[in-house]
Amino acid sequence: MASIIIIGSGLCGTLMALRLAQKGYHVDIYEKRPDMRQANIGGGRSINLALSDRGLKGLEMVGLREKALELVIPMKGRQIHDQKGNQQFFSYSGRQGEVINSISRKGLNILLMDEAQKTGKIRFFFRHECSDIDFDRGVATVKNLETHEESTISGEVILGTDGAFSAVRQAMMRQSGALRFQYSQSFLDTGYKELTIPATPDGGFRLEKNALHIWPREGFMLIALPNLDGSFTVTLFLPFEGEKSFANLHSPTEIKQFFDTYFASATEHMPDLVEDFYENPTSSLCTIKCFPWQVGGKVALMGDAAHAVVPFYGQGMNASFEDCVVLDACMDQFPGEWNHILSAYETARKVNGDAIGDLAVDNFYEMKAATADPVFALKRRIELDLEQNFPDYFSKYSMVTFREDLPYKIAMDKGREQDAQLMEYAKTIFPGQEWNREEVYQMLKNKV
Amino acid sequence: MASIIIIGSGLCGTLMALRLAQKGYHVDIYEKRPDMRQANIGGGRSINLALSDRGLKGLEMVGLREKALELVIPMKGRQIHDQKGNQQFFSYSGRQGEVINSISRKGLNILLMDEAQKTGKIRFFFRHECSDIDFDRGVATVKNLETHEESTISGEVILGTDGAFSAVRQAMMRQSGALRFQYSQSFLDTGYKELTIPATPDGGFRLEKNALHIWPREGFMLIALPNLDGSFTVTLFLPFEGEKSFANLHSPTEIKQFFDTYFASATEHMPDLVEDFYENPTSSLCTIKCFPWQVGGKVALMGDAAHAVVPFYGQGMNASFEDCVVLDACMDQFPGEWNHILSAYETARKVNGDAIGDLAVDNFYEMKAATADPVFALKRRIELDLEQNFPDYFSKYSMVTFREDLPYKIAMDKGREQDAQLMEYAKTIFPGQEWNREEVYQMLKNKV
Repeated sequence: MASIIIIGSGLCGTLMALRLAQKGYHVDIYEKRPDMRQANIGGGRSINLALSDRGLKGLEMVGLREKALELVIPMKGRQIHDQKGNQQFFSYSGRQGEVINSISRKGLNILLMDEAQKTGKIRFFFRHECSDIDFDRGVATVKNLETHEESTISGEVILGTDGAFSAVRQAMMRQSGALRFQYSQSFLDTGYKELTIPATPDGGFRLEKNALHIWPREGFMLIALPNLDGSFTVTLFLPFEGEKSFANLHSPTEIKQFFDTYFASATEHMPDLVEDFYENPTSSLCTIKCFPWQVGGKVALMGDAAHAVVPFYGQGMNASFEDCVVLDACMDQFPGEWNHILSAYETARKVNGDAIGDLAVDNFYEMKAATADPVFALKRRIELDLEQNFPDYFSKYSMVTFREDLPYKIAMDKGREQDAQLMEYAKTIFPGQEWNREEVYQMLKNKV
Repeated sequence: MASIIIIGSGLCGTLMALRLAQKGYHVDIYEKRPDMRQANIGGGRSINLALSDRGLKGLEMVGLREKALELVIPMKGRQIHDQKGNQQFFSYSGRQGEVINSISRKGLNILLMDEAQKTGKIRFFFRHECSDIDFDRGVATVKNLETHEESTISGEVILGTDGAFSAVRQAMMRQSGALRFQYSQSFLDTGYKELTIPATPDGGFRLEKNALHIWPREGFMLIALPNLDGSFTVTLFLPFEGEKSFANLHSPTEIKQFFDTYFASATEHMPDLVEDFYENPTSSLCTIKCFPWQVGGKVALMGDAAHAVVPFYGQGMNASFEDCVVLDACMDQFPGEWNHILSAYETARKVNGDAIGDLAVDNFYEMKAATADPVFALKRRIELDLEQNFPDYFSKYSMVTFREDLPYKIAMDKGREQDAQLMEYAKTIFPGQEWNREEVYQMLKNKV
């Protein structure tokens, strides 16, 4: 008999299960996909992820920080590739040690599953799909996808960690009137497709290993994150429609030509480009916000199920792990009182889930604008210079990424104010003119 | 063999069917409820509605303006009842003949159905529920709720006029990624419950007949619209939670006491108040926005299915009828070319559907604020004075309600600008001081 039910064995669900087991709970996890440790399936919607300080705090909570760090490749900054093949490196931070980490989604998920299994308190039910939730009774209906049998399950609480298309959230949607369920889903006009830069024959990296590579172009871009095996996972972000778009790439020749024109320094390392392009899906990018995140102290949403975000801040997994940290703290605050626990969790996290959703969309537009705007480039230089010279100055990016002590909402509000001031200041500097470091620092210090 | 499929036989679907039949099309309408002409069921979510100029334009299009006007009770303005029982009448417009019309939803729907049937080109399939849409093939699956048989149906196009909880829109939601379906549903914290003031024994009206009655209180209100039979349909708008809320009315005594305290001048005419209160549901108030409204020139959303709005502008039905007028015009513009027709319809209407949704929410907050704010009351007096003296001046309310030639979006933008200016002006007038009519008129005339 489980005391907690978790729907979804992705990163968030498995981390939370592990923590609950450490707290003494028995947990049953239901997952509609097969066990990724046996089946040859992808781990989810993206192959690798950026693990940063908020995520590491979640792993620290369950004692897996060090084990996870064995699986990563640190990325110290952005390696920007222009159309002529020139490269320029921009550090993520002016401070030492502030890096983000490329990690395989599947690799990390398997680490979490294996550790979960070791506790002896967690059972996994793969190929079991949640089809409905009875919120009054706190009971979930699950369907065994092998036998097609349906059964009902219950526990002290049900946690929905079943991702952006969450069945638990859809059950809430079906009770929209009664729950007054606020919901929005918003898609970008840009889609993405994953491609590959393979390792060299001897397992080496074809590009600088410790960087997140970006080929920014106006309105579209290519990025690449390193993998442990020497390969890079490459992602093309491109509008669905329009002149330069997925819709306008009609043939292998056009695809090859497009890449040769805009991304020559990547394309030379992509022997299987055209095959990959046709084989891999073109996916959409969605931000989801909703409220409530919990019903009656019995059912709660966590991770992408509660706040799906676009990937432009590299914070999806980190935000989900932070949900686990907050829920854990709420459990300590109100031992055994799930009504209070879930209500406190919801109150603490809703505003921050929305904030990282907004920040990620901001960054999508910022990444597009950044390539064209010299004022923006200057602003970014000033920011890095400030970070190098003033240990207590943090850019918006740094607050979001490296300051796991600051809620996203505060990072967003402070960061946006800072950005606006810096952009105003950058406009007053003539090309080639030096800026006054101390003056800028005092301006931001006083106001923020 | 039908050439057009319509899902939903409510006001919007039946009006559109009638127009299509007049244009020579054969139409099949599928409706999940029984035929309201035989079954003793309500017509939908509210008993009576306010029919105004945009709605009348839709009825004019099918030649039913006069027949519909036989079913209405004109309401010339708002009759405001304060807590002491004092009444004050505020005309809807300073111009003659600008009234809104109370009409029974069911009565109007039956008129439309009967006229539709007379064309000989429209077939109704009641108790048939749409369960899915194949957007590539333009095929709907419908289930006969009597026999439980499913069948697939198709036509030149499928029009989803199936209301706020539209099955057609839900089918689009299930294709969210492929359609990049933008969707939001937003509930107010306030709910509503319908009640009744019966006619006098000899069929007379217990309150002024030709007015929309309002008992505005801080944070909640009661309204009443007249019916042909001498009764009034009364609606209580009250927060779900909080001190004065549905959740806080625990017993017949508390209900009676609450009404006696705040709505004594209505309660004295409500002998069945407590019974009605317990018998009738407490319903929620939702604004729905989505995009796209059409898929591939084959399937389109109309009416509440595309843009559910809260009732505070009395424009729900009127907006839906305007959808029909616009679709009709697009059909004339691109004869037989459904790709162009539905695309033009969507482009023309999406922005206006969103605008009336926003206007209606604005009005909810405005109605609450209006009761407390003397500046707002002065602003409203200035506005009426302007309308009485300058035939070419229109308040926001008048532009939305009486100017069927102005799209909602323009009425909203102009109206909001005007409102902001008038509020600023009203702040400069001391209590008891006269305002300068000509100056205000020139100020607004020059800016808008």
